[in-house]
Amino acid sequence: MGRGCPLGENPCPVLPGALSSPEFFSYGVEAYEACKKRSLTSDIIAEQEKVQEADLVMFQFPLYWFSVPAVLKGWMDRVLCQGFAFDLPGFYDDGLLKGKLAILSLTTGGTADMYWKTGASGDFRYFLWPLQHGTLHFCGFKVLAPHISFAPEFASEEERRGMVASWAQRLKTIWKEEPIPCWPPWYFGQ
Amino acid sequence: MGRGCPLGENPCPVLPGALSSPEFFSYGVEAYEACKKRSLTSDIIAEQEKVQEADLVMFQFPLYWFSVPAVLKGWMDRVLCQGFAFDLPGFYDDGLLKGKLAILSLTTGGTADMYWKTGASGDFRYFLWPLQHGTLHFCGFKVLAPHISFAPEFASEEERRGMVASWAQRLKTIWKEEPIPCWPPWYFGQ
Repeated sequence: MGRGCPLGENPCPVLPGALSSPEFFSYGVEAYEACKKRSLTSDIIAEQEKVQEADLVMFQFPLYWFSVPAVLKGWMDRVLCQGFAFDLPGFYDDGLLKGKLAILSLTTGGTADMYWKTGASGDFRYFLWPLQHGTLHFCGFKVLAPHISFAPEFASEEERRGMVASWAQRLKTIWKEEPIPCWPPWYFGQ
Repeated sequence: MGRGCPLGENPCPVLPGALSSPEFFSYGVEAYEACKKRSLTSDIIAEQEKVQEADLVMFQFPLYWFSVPAVLKGWMDRVLCQGFAFDLPGFYDDGLLKGKLAILSLTTGGTADMYWKTGASGDFRYFLWPLQHGTLHFCGFKVLAPHISFAPEFASEEERRGMVASWAQRLKTIWKEEPIPCWPPWYFGQ
């Protein structure tokens, strides 16, 4: 209780310094203050420096529950903090990471026909909304069309090689691609 | 390399037993096999038993990047495994947790006017799709309308007390509520 924090001690390993508002703990507030003071832990700062240097950030992951696996969600929760990735104001088209590109490259468990508009899981674009618009676009990234490899687990070895080859092919000209218009019509339009 | 796993050793702390397919590691496959053999770690089994005993599961969380914080995503990724929460076939209305209710009760950083259809963040229902439909409904839960407390951080003490009181009031009659129709029109309709 040395800092007066109701949780007994600083509960956040990414916030090694003294809390800014120990009597009313808010992770967002503390991360913002720590970011401004550059007192976030060195691993978080190292990740932020990688993002800062990048022109294009690629997120490669297996789709878990229509989203990123928890470990990648934790990366987003911790690295993309206020003061680094956005500010208030300073989000969406004015996000602090504007000028950068991002792309989601993901594998799914379900086959492609589960992710059509009429499929049981709805259109594949529906589940991209929180990640592409709510996270990447919020931080100012321009978002390239997602790269989705459907159900590699149920594909033949030849089909899997084809998936990798098509990704490699796309990467050759990815710098020429135009970002998607990352607003509701892209996700929920006709 | 004792088990022949390409990652050197069993990389999953929730899978303490020998891997079923060490030459081609798939977390989903291993979790499914471990679930059937009841060889998941005791903390995961304990969480599954709580879910199994519940008639209504409430998820209370602060919205982080339009979704659950990573620690709760990790709970979903690990606890709601194939063989316990769903099977193939055995999902959506036939999910293994059918007969149970679930509800998301969440707090947001942004104010309510950011989450209207015409707001910069779109309709609040958009971001609920992966959690309510893609996760809970997929496992067979019937989903009650979400309970959202917008921006308590920017509210007065009196307004915050009002938020808690309205939640308490709702809980008194929650057993009488009808679940939402957890399909695309609820999320993306007019």
